[in-house]
Amino acid sequence: MLLLHLSDVDEASWARRFREVLGSYPVVQRGDDFNPDDVRYLFVWKPKADAFDGLNHLTAIFSLGAGVDAMLKNPKLPNVPIARFVDDDLSQRMSDYVVAHVTMHHRLYTRFRADQKAHRWSQLYPPAASETTVGIMGMGVLGQDAVARLKPLGFTLRSWSRSPKDIAGVEGFAGNATLDEFLSGTDILVNLLPLTAETTGILNYETFRKLRRGKLDGGPVIVNAARGGHQREADIVKALADGTLGAASLDVFEVEPLPADSPLWDIENCYITPHIAAISNETTGVTYFSKVLKDHEAGKPLINVVDRTRGY
Amino acid sequence: MLLLHLSDVDEASWARRFREVLGSYPVVQRGDDFNPDDVRYLFVWKPKADAFDGLNHLTAIFSLGAGVDAMLKNPKLPNVPIARFVDDDLSQRMSDYVVAHVTMHHRLYTRFRADQKAHRWSQLYPPAASETTVGIMGMGVLGQDAVARLKPLGFTLRSWSRSPKDIAGVEGFAGNATLDEFLSGTDILVNLLPLTAETTGILNYETFRKLRRGKLDGGPVIVNAARGGHQREADIVKALADGTLGAASLDVFEVEPLPADSPLWDIENCYITPHIAAISNETTGVTYFSKVLKDHEAGKPLINVVDRTRGY
Repeated sequence: MLLLHLSDVDEASWARRFREVLGSYPVVQRGDDFNPDDVRYLFVWKPKADAFDGLNHLTAIFSLGAGVDAMLKNPKLPNVPIARFVDDDLSQRMSDYVVAHVTMHHRLYTRFRADQKAHRWSQLYPPAASETTVGIMGMGVLGQDAVARLKPLGFTLRSWSRSPKDIAGVEGFAGNATLDEFLSGTDILVNLLPLTAETTGILNYETFRKLRRGKLDGGPVIVNAARGGHQREADIVKALADGTLGAASLDVFEVEPLPADSPLWDIENCYITPHIAAISNETTGVTYFSKVLKDHEAGKPLINVVDRTRGY
Repeated sequence: MLLLHLSDVDEASWARRFREVLGSYPVVQRGDDFNPDDVRYLFVWKPKADAFDGLNHLTAIFSLGAGVDAMLKNPKLPNVPIARFVDDDLSQRMSDYVVAHVTMHHRLYTRFRADQKAHRWSQLYPPAASETTVGIMGMGVLGQDAVARLKPLGFTLRSWSRSPKDIAGVEGFAGNATLDEFLSGTDILVNLLPLTAETTGILNYETFRKLRRGKLDGGPVIVNAARGGHQREADIVKALADGTLGAASLDVFEVEPLPADSPLWDIENCYITPHIAAISNETTGVTYFSKVLKDHEAGKPLINVVDRTRGY
């Protein structure tokens, strides 16, 4: 039996689709009448604290979200494998967000918008893409997809990750000892890291201060498409105010929804989107996990299983 | 002798660089003391009406700008070949602009910025790039470069040009009879056409009305990186006000600089840049035309010569 536990989306619609694809295999929602002991698979999106209660015969958890940091902190999380959703559609949408915001800042959007408001015609030629270095933190599936999209645009690319990655056309930095060097040559910093104890709060004032200055008119820029826990919002407010950062694009926040009284809303060079960089498409999500479930029932191993020690 | 006639840029700096590269070959500016009969080559950027006066022994005109529409309308233009600047750096910069504005609109920038101003957290997932069709008008060097950059991002692409072009992964439309069909499947319209009698005013209300609706939240979008003469600004104002267009990115204008009292400045979903999409870089421009000049002096034919009948 597959139990769905989805928040903020139309769970019934997902259930209908799973039933279409899985045929006779039982698919239930929380309100349905079923025996919890029959639940072998739990499919979650933003699971609540009680998501795992009473599920004593779970075989695996399927996570629609790429980030499992919140789930791993739940003390009631059963000791079964967590299989993550990894698909091209999700990666593509994340890269769509990253490319749109990187190119917007490279083309000095903030400056030209201010000129427009002032009815000011003031010519300044942005650097060529090759003259701008985009530094990507996190070289998993999403980081590598972002590289594949940004490279044909001509940007100079560097990456920073926990373990070394050898990717053609990207200058790779690995481990904490190289972070400062990585930052010192970065004009636009893109965060695609998993949220772990080590990466929590990595987007802080000290980090911003180490980014390269003088290449991008207005100052270096950050783009956070990963997790709100990566960023110190008070530091972002300060850095945007004193020019340490030229701009910030944030899709995620320490508290979501971003509280209406957050100072970030009113900062002109802070670009807020409401955690919409990438969503897992219903059709591809159902197709993906239906296959994972059927393969697993047929005795095949699970794929894209979370390493709980690493935290992703 | 090479005479420089450049407006709005540091002509003396260009002259110094040309002298460095051309060595003993004479390079002069308008104010210098020289015999006009010695001028064999004229290098121009935004030439004034009297640019050609007294130059009776010209062999060729070198145009730094890709668009030669204004020059061709000058009744005093001598009947010598006009060689245009075509280089990767110029194409790259133009594509940088195009990609930044296409991706910004694809990611529904206008909507999310309005939400931010209202401190409103309202989730809406933009379509994947593959679900959005970018229609490019003009398939010369710049149009083809834009295709090469947009294709790896996953957009669905179509093109419209005077003569048929067969480009992999792009649905090609050619000639006036196909314009309506081309527009009817286009969500984001990018103009990279040369300005000719046929293309003047092509960005008008009737054109906007024929673009595809319903795919991009807010309505279809135009991006004009070519010439102000292509657009009817009164029609853009009307189309942005009544929702026929969701947004417009304009780098060029009917009159430049855009007059301070133009209504375009204050339209929220109109994104103005002051004709800075692409500039020819001094180093590459000097290198390019120094080679053209030396090759021509050595008896080789000129390259990238304007066809005056076509107008580009």
